Amino acid sequence: MSETDPARGPSVRAVPEGDNRERMICAECGFILYDNPKIVVGSVARLGERILLVRRSIDPRRGFWTLPAGFLELNESTNSGAEREAWEEARARIEIEGLLAIYDIPRISQVQLVYRARLLDDKVEPGPESLEVGLFLWDEIPWPQIAFPSVRWALQHEREARSSRDFTTRLNPPGF
Amino acid sequence: MSETDPARGPSVRAVPEGDNRERMICAECGFILYDNPKIVVGSVARLGERILLVRRSIDPRRGFWTLPAGFLELNESTNSGAEREAWEEARARIEIEGLLAIYDIPRISQVQLVYRARLLDDKVEPGPESLEVGLFLWDEIPWPQIAFPSVRWALQHEREARSSRDFTTRLNPPGF
Repeated sequence: MSETDPARGPSVRAVPEGDNRERMICAECGFILYDNPKIVVGSVARLGERILLVRRSIDPRRGFWTLPAGFLELNESTNSGAEREAWEEARARIEIEGLLAIYDIPRISQVQLVYRARLLDDKVEPGPESLEVGLFLWDEIPWPQIAFPSVRWALQHEREARSSRDFTTRLNPPGF
Repeated sequence: MSETDPARGPSVRAVPEGDNRERMICAECGFILYDNPKIVVGSVARLGERILLVRRSIDPRRGFWTLPAGFLELNESTNSGAEREAWEEARARIEIEGLLAIYDIPRISQVQLVYRARLLDDKVEPGPESLEVGLFLWDEIPWPQIAFPSVRWALQHEREARSSRDFTTRLNPPGF
């Protein structure tokens, strides 16, 4: 696969017959790439008052802290996806409690589903996409080193849900 | 594009370097298709007590009734997508009120986001993917001709939300 020529594959932009918008098409074989937004699944997983974060070993935002999260795979339920990501990124075993939030991020064509979860024990360690894992009290969260705005939203929404005992699903903060 | 050979394009199943699961790869150029679950956006749109349904002119379930819904497009917000689908399928102008439900359907690799919406007027007519459009009172809904289980879930969830005045986001019914 290292011989891949980036100019090949679906690289011609055109409107397929019967469609109403441009898609990427392969000039060689006519394959049409119907590219759609992706679903990201993740969790705010707690052990008591501590929250699980992972430090990214990959770009974008290498070295910054994030929640265990990633792309949902084919034929995977969203809560199984969140459990798998916790395992892959932090070797963490979690129990899903409920859907904390849905964030709609059209700029990067993502819909993010973030679950509230309970960490089953403190045996966590970095997976291949993490440099480090940590269990942080609220006042210890490294806010300036948080990788993405939606990670901040989810941390704040989880705290708000617990303090208000309103565990209904949150959406993007106003204005975002 | 009519000359497309279905055996070409990404048609070889293999695990790309650095990945941990099989993807479809093009034998000619090495293009890797990262296929992921898709997001469906739609709405339960009401005009007073009447609910907008459309009768499908395309497979699957041609001739059956459904809610206006379809795949979210790149760089589109989920509520804009729901508005677009109402226009494309029923020439309906709607105003989104809130997120009614999220249905997780791993068997067909879909996550469906269904909004509650208000229809702005009764000027509706079939778009290219619809045979017919209708505004139905609850007792007039053609239940045996409803296209998909999640359409029934959404209709029942919308009714339940209104009668209980609990407008929080619903999930899959128990057992589904």
